[in-house]
Amino acid sequence: MSTRAGVIVTGTEVLTGRVSDRNGPWLAEQLRRLGVDIAHVIVVGDRPDDLTRALEFLVGTGIDLIVTSGGLGPTADDLTAEVVAAFQGRSAQLDPALEQQIGDIVARLSAGRGWRLDEQATAAATRKQALVPAGATAIPPVGTAPGLIVPPADGRTGPPVVVLPGPPRELQGMWPAVVADATVGAALAGREELRQQTIRLWGTPESELAATLRQLGDRLDGLEVTTCLRDGELEIVTRYRPAAQPAYTDFAAAIGDEYARVLFSADGRTVDDIVAEALLAQGRTIATAESCTGGLLVARLTDRPGSSAYVLGGVTSYSNEVKQDIVGVPAELIARVGAVSAEVAEAMATGVRTALGADVGVGITGIAGPDGGTPDKPVGLVHLCVADADSSVPTRIVLPGNRADVRKRAVVVAMHMLRRLLTD
Amino acid sequence: MSTRAGVIVTGTEVLTGRVSDRNGPWLAEQLRRLGVDIAHVIVVGDRPDDLTRALEFLVGTGIDLIVTSGGLGPTADDLTAEVVAAFQGRSAQLDPALEQQIGDIVARLSAGRGWRLDEQATAAATRKQALVPAGATAIPPVGTAPGLIVPPADGRTGPPVVVLPGPPRELQGMWPAVVADATVGAALAGREELRQQTIRLWGTPESELAATLRQLGDRLDGLEVTTCLRDGELEIVTRYRPAAQPAYTDFAAAIGDEYARVLFSADGRTVDDIVAEALLAQGRTIATAESCTGGLLVARLTDRPGSSAYVLGGVTSYSNEVKQDIVGVPAELIARVGAVSAEVAEAMATGVRTALGADVGVGITGIAGPDGGTPDKPVGLVHLCVADADSSVPTRIVLPGNRADVRKRAVVVAMHMLRRLLTD
Repeated sequence: MSTRAGVIVTGTEVLTGRVSDRNGPWLAEQLRRLGVDIAHVIVVGDRPDDLTRALEFLVGTGIDLIVTSGGLGPTADDLTAEVVAAFQGRSAQLDPALEQQIGDIVARLSAGRGWRLDEQATAAATRKQALVPAGATAIPPVGTAPGLIVPPADGRTGPPVVVLPGPPRELQGMWPAVVADATVGAALAGREELRQQTIRLWGTPESELAATLRQLGDRLDGLEVTTCLRDGELEIVTRYRPAAQPAYTDFAAAIGDEYARVLFSADGRTVDDIVAEALLAQGRTIATAESCTGGLLVARLTDRPGSSAYVLGGVTSYSNEVKQDIVGVPAELIARVGAVSAEVAEAMATGVRTALGADVGVGITGIAGPDGGTPDKPVGLVHLCVADADSSVPTRIVLPGNRADVRKRAVVVAMHMLRRLLTD
Repeated sequence: MSTRAGVIVTGTEVLTGRVSDRNGPWLAEQLRRLGVDIAHVIVVGDRPDDLTRALEFLVGTGIDLIVTSGGLGPTADDLTAEVVAAFQGRSAQLDPALEQQIGDIVARLSAGRGWRLDEQATAAATRKQALVPAGATAIPPVGTAPGLIVPPADGRTGPPVVVLPGPPRELQGMWPAVVADATVGAALAGREELRQQTIRLWGTPESELAATLRQLGDRLDGLEVTTCLRDGELEIVTRYRPAAQPAYTDFAAAIGDEYARVLFSADGRTVDDIVAEALLAQGRTIATAESCTGGLLVARLTDRPGSSAYVLGGVTSYSNEVKQDIVGVPAELIARVGAVSAEVAEAMATGVRTALGADVGVGITGIAGPDGGTPDKPVGLVHLCVADADSSVPTRIVLPGNRADVRKRAVVVAMHMLRRLLTD
């Protein structure tokens, strides 16, 4: 039996969908790197009974460690520390040193923002956050809330519960202290490396891959293969223990043979990695002209640290006047073929390349919807073009989904057009 | 006891964080609108035992309905239909009409993308997706997978399980059929309206609000109040049954009095709604010049349907040359005070306003990190400016967090500066 952990994400704002959970996925990947498999991530609201039930359920599945996120704030609906303490049979005690530490942090933060604080309110909030279950280990705050490592009380059995704050930056900042903790180390003592490899395909249906996997049959023994189709990219992720390395090597070779034409990454690199590395290696710069995607492509390109080395900038040319005056698309062309056309996409790519003095230009124009479609030019129609000094490559595509889907998928198509231009 | 439901999100790709779940939150809000409260959202991998355990757990909490998402695809790791059928004591049967329908859809999709399909592989995938538990109701596919409504077999008790596909567009497209279904209707027969109201504050610490909530004490009886601090906005969401309406009206008035200065929305509208409505109502247009945020602001502004009525466009001016040549920031100014400065932010706002011919201009320049910080200008420093014909309003802020946090938070600050310029 492998070492397994469960995660509980607390917060009515997460449960009801007002905030999307980033901690469950992040914790799952950190645990995987430690060799710990994950069985369930449970999202619960700020209700003591629901949280207790989730703890009971996870303990019942026989796991080795529980990690919770959220519910450590100053308001009364933040009750994770209290519920976990009771669940592990421990009473909460005020930690005066921690109280002082949190008080100092709050004072500093508020001063930085120019906030006037109600002294009594602040003191009450600080005291609440400095309550630590007896016998638990406190992890120093990254924000204002400390983390906790809470083993079961003497005479009880069960896994330790690691209690972390909800803000991802705080949770992530505390993780090294969790990994270094002796209680956590003992709970995960039996763990064995859990490898994960990713192969990415662009432009093949999932049903073809399903057939390949069926044909491979028991050559996949020891491999946990999951496939996921996302915005046109087909991702094959395999998790396995070291003993199954030969099986994985064999599997990766089989996929490499069968899908040579569409496989673009077998080493985990994303299309973003490939485009950025190619631009850097070739010493080339890039500029974008976007209409329907509204700046999402240039925002994605500049998401990477160091992208200022090759991204000169971009123009979101929503109006025709901006297309003409800033990007240099001829007004006559727009009047003749319409703003959503192969010709205008090409004029945007070459125009923004010239206007910004870049080596590579991208043009995107389309109808993201929900309105503005016609029988000839339906919602989802997108014309794209990538251009450099030697060539310009156009693509016309009709994308399914709503406005957000069309915008996001058009950006993915543009990324793969760039990848091909730069690496083929 | 109120009517409650549980949600199970399946998929190793979700559990391990490669795909973030959009279905749990969406389903939670749809159920809330039906008057159904939600207790737990459980994410499980593609393993039959883990899924069965999650089903057992939810049934054990005494809920009235279970909804699952994902695991209906053509690959072997898609096993939700099979596991749910066994859990409810029903055997799977091939539905020939459904098989025909799925086959037609796959053929049409593939033709549209120009894919050549392996006939045998396609037939096997189609057959798998057309297996329906005996006695279950199939919901016609939106993509290629049908949904299922699976009541417990005769002689068994427990809630019905609604099985929906993972792609959000498909799941959402099927929801009306779920709501209209008689089995689902009977399971939720006792439900009562569950109201939800949102109040939003900008620029106050959560500890102050915690004190206010403590002071209100039992005036909050019957209200489930949750607070959430997100990117500087403090959101107060209250859920209650109709009998507690007077308590909510009283609570909303108390918050309105106490936080008049920082309350910007008491009717659920977001800062995006307010900015868009103000621009439309005033007949004004907007243009952006972004450096560190890389296009995220203009992408957010154009995320809304109909935004072309007031967004003329934006320039992502990553290089100094683009700031000078396209936005019109004087080279001399950049040389004298540096690209990250109040002066350059203002020159960007007024420059892009002029260059694109807009009524309102926004300029953002900062250091998103992780590199590029100095003691004088640390990582997280952002200068922003909003300008119209009459005024230009600058802000200097130092934002915490990593590169993505700084970029995202700077956009939120810009949205609130716009809100104030347009509505004060």
